[in-house]
Amino acid sequence: MKIEYLHTMVRVKDLEKSQAFYELLGLVQTRRTDNDKGRFSLVFMSPPGQDNAAVEMTYNWDGDEGLPSDSRHFGHLAYRVENIYDLCQHLMDNGITINRPPRDGNMAFVRSPDNVSIELLQMGDPLPPAEPWASMENTGHW
Amino acid sequence: MKIEYLHTMVRVKDLEKSQAFYELLGLVQTRRTDNDKGRFSLVFMSPPGQDNAAVEMTYNWDGDEGLPSDSRHFGHLAYRVENIYDLCQHLMDNGITINRPPRDGNMAFVRSPDNVSIELLQMGDPLPPAEPWASMENTGHW
Repeated sequence: MKIEYLHTMVRVKDLEKSQAFYELLGLVQTRRTDNDKGRFSLVFMSPPGQDNAAVEMTYNWDGDEGLPSDSRHFGHLAYRVENIYDLCQHLMDNGITINRPPRDGNMAFVRSPDNVSIELLQMGDPLPPAEPWASMENTGHW
Repeated sequence: MKIEYLHTMVRVKDLEKSQAFYELLGLVQTRRTDNDKGRFSLVFMSPPGQDNAAVEMTYNWDGDEGLPSDSRHFGHLAYRVENIYDLCQHLMDNGITINRPPRDGNMAFVRSPDNVSIELLQMGDPLPPAEPWASMENTGHW
């Protein structure tokens, strides 16, 4: 029995805000459906060249109760990135809280506008420790 | 800035039960870490040949509050499968509820032991309608 991974779906409260967030991470839109009858939009965003590893955003035009929530049963989406310091700086410059700064040059956590936890991991070896990251405290949880 | 998808993480209440569930889907374990100090285990399971599209299970040995929960902000994991009828039959035979049966020969939804919603999609064209699926009602939501 053959099986192939396709995507992870998350529901979003504010589609533009979420698209902007995933764009900051470096994802690009690969597909969008706007369904007038069902009154919802689906937006697929992937790392460039990784079309079958999308995060699918479901946006219900008439709102969605329980968003943003913070349940425990869903963990996170993980992405490996070229330079974790540069990306975290880019996110901070755009108002994103770095919940778990990359003190070790290797791992960081941030949250999407709907509290979806996002893990960032450095490609290859960890970067040498550097400020402001090395002495930055955690903020909240992830 | 290069970015690469790695995995989706979900927390599980009963590791063996969850491993058995993902095995029923056809996933295979690619990595396991048991951390005595942190008292947790991490188990990565992927479709065969798709090591970088894993579901990572986090199992906290001393339990995890709020599991299984049923929040809205996380949507589902999606997998494309070779024969959606055969897989749904296999799942049913092993006691899994088919929340949204593949009436259309194309799409079904089930739930993991922790209420993580799993979407199954038929490879290629939808299968011709067939019983017992065509007349099977939905059970709960997903």
